[in-house]
Amino acid sequence: MNHEYFMNLAIKEAKKGIGKVNPNPLVGAVIVKDGKIISKGYHEFFGGRHAEIMAIDNAKKNNNDIKGATMYVTLEPCSHFGKTPPCAYRLVKEGFKEVYIGMLDPNPLVNGNGIKILRNNGIKVQYGILEKQIKELNEIFITYITKKRPYIALKFAMTLDGFIATKKYDSKWISNEKSRKFVHKLRNYYSSILVGSNTLIKDNPKLTCRLKNGRNPIRIILDEKGVFENKKLNIFDEKGRNIIFTKKIIKDSIKNTEIINEINIKEIIKILYQKNIDSILVEGGATVLSSFLKLNLVDKMHVFYSPKIIVNGVSPFRNITINSIRESIKFKCKKVKSIDDNVYWELEACLRE
Amino acid sequence: MNHEYFMNLAIKEAKKGIGKVNPNPLVGAVIVKDGKIISKGYHEFFGGRHAEIMAIDNAKKNNNDIKGATMYVTLEPCSHFGKTPPCAYRLVKEGFKEVYIGMLDPNPLVNGNGIKILRNNGIKVQYGILEKQIKELNEIFITYITKKRPYIALKFAMTLDGFIATKKYDSKWISNEKSRKFVHKLRNYYSSILVGSNTLIKDNPKLTCRLKNGRNPIRIILDEKGVFENKKLNIFDEKGRNIIFTKKIIKDSIKNTEIINEINIKEIIKILYQKNIDSILVEGGATVLSSFLKLNLVDKMHVFYSPKIIVNGVSPFRNITINSIRESIKFKCKKVKSIDDNVYWELEACLRE
Repeated sequence: MNHEYFMNLAIKEAKKGIGKVNPNPLVGAVIVKDGKIISKGYHEFFGGRHAEIMAIDNAKKNNNDIKGATMYVTLEPCSHFGKTPPCAYRLVKEGFKEVYIGMLDPNPLVNGNGIKILRNNGIKVQYGILEKQIKELNEIFITYITKKRPYIALKFAMTLDGFIATKKYDSKWISNEKSRKFVHKLRNYYSSILVGSNTLIKDNPKLTCRLKNGRNPIRIILDEKGVFENKKLNIFDEKGRNIIFTKKIIKDSIKNTEIINEINIKEIIKILYQKNIDSILVEGGATVLSSFLKLNLVDKMHVFYSPKIIVNGVSPFRNITINSIRESIKFKCKKVKSIDDNVYWELEACLRE
Repeated sequence: MNHEYFMNLAIKEAKKGIGKVNPNPLVGAVIVKDGKIISKGYHEFFGGRHAEIMAIDNAKKNNNDIKGATMYVTLEPCSHFGKTPPCAYRLVKEGFKEVYIGMLDPNPLVNGNGIKILRNNGIKVQYGILEKQIKELNEIFITYITKKRPYIALKFAMTLDGFIATKKYDSKWISNEKSRKFVHKLRNYYSSILVGSNTLIKDNPKLTCRLKNGRNPIRIILDEKGVFENKKLNIFDEKGRNIIFTKKIIKDSIKNTEIINEINIKEIIKILYQKNIDSILVEGGATVLSSFLKLNLVDKMHVFYSPKIIVNGVSPFRNITINSIRESIKFKCKKVKSIDDNVYWELEACLRE
């Protein structure tokens, strides 16, 4: 049993917070004494106690003596007074001997200061354990903090020859049932879901997360012309919150729904950031997907291929001219897996200027 | 060690014939006596000794006594006088006690008769061992024998959004180097390779197999208008054989090249069958790929996806109208794997009427 082993357990703890902590990071902690795990904890919900404190409290609840123990924590303990007092001082106070850390806090208010506090108080600190994995786990948080905008993921399902719908806009169903179930995991993972008005009107989607214990993402609609007005749409009946961006001035208020008169995507992204929305799953259609791609506002893509050919249909992207393969917009392959007869491909954007 | 174990070894033997035995089947044989493998053999080249005879001869070369031994053979021993005398009688003559068979010979001249001969002569016979794998191994042979036409596989590489080239026909390089190397394995596996005149003129490809110990597939060109005439093209300089289908009457003869005045694909397929060509790898371009798809002449597709977006380009297929997803042309997923940053997808056609 080595450091990786315990850090892996801390990662497992951290993952329990998926869908609940945004825009906070996912953090897990494990306390080990004399080679034995005496306590675990994770950041459970936004504004809640930090993972370190949860683990300490859990240990005390079971009358475990922490003094001289070792903590494994996925993220650097905080050093500033935020919603909670700084964890670094608490670790000092509790008399930890060693602290193993996954990644530094990208928040400039912390970044390295947590470690300084620990070291200045005689605690042995090592960081960078399973760092790559932990950074991936917190890709949303890192982007949100460092780029000061929500993390943006595109999702679309295509026929094997690259169409998200037939020319007559039939898209039911390109992907298989299992793939569509998987999409609900994504909806639980990202804090908001965004679609354009075509999708809203044609499909009348619920845009909910149908996972057991899942939570509905905030539903964001880009509806320039305000065609949603006076329509009975499923999103107005579902639990959760809607934000509609439109040019149209809407007089009547709608339950659960905020109307914002803005249609410029860059401005919309700023507004969402100010609303503490740390991540967006853009589900289409083509016009919306293309706008994000064109503006270089894509961090990740979740692509599903189905073993079907329709020869001529609607492509996921449009309105961008690329003449040579060299000019193509490139991605990094993150994951490939088959979901029954579908292929799921997770792709990460390459840096573009 | 059970029957599957020995049959697996026979399969391994059979695979040694890949690229060499067409239009014969791939066959491997293993002889076991007292639980010990005493000999192996495989069908090495078209017209050569059958796997059973190879294994028997190999046993004798090493002074092994076959009498009372067990044979594992992937395909039913033949019962008719073809290029070689029937293997079934030879097995009887050699005094085999048991014969374990992978699959029945689909050839109506044999189908079950080989087994009858063995059983009528007191040999214990069991068949259907690893049958599914062995049928896959001989998908070309089975199609060739039962459908009386070559097995047809399409191969194309696409950007992730489904384009085989930009609008300006740039396609260098969509797929990565490792994927392109893999294509040479396919070229060694299929006995012929087929492209249209656009591909011939624009890319001036060699259409060779660049595997060590590989053999060049027969190069088949569909060139309706005969634009190849008087052009210096790589295919005329490469080892192997060219067949050009065209409307144009060509007077001069060209080295290694046969000109056939036929452009109807169904007729072309018949001609190739009559020439004992058991399989075709159709490598494009879009016009040619589409013709085969339209005529329902597709047994398999080898598709490569590259993590690039070009938004607007050349689709692999055209000239077919499909209005709803329900009408789409469906495939079965055979294999998915990542080749570095590319995704390789092997698809098998679903029966269409």
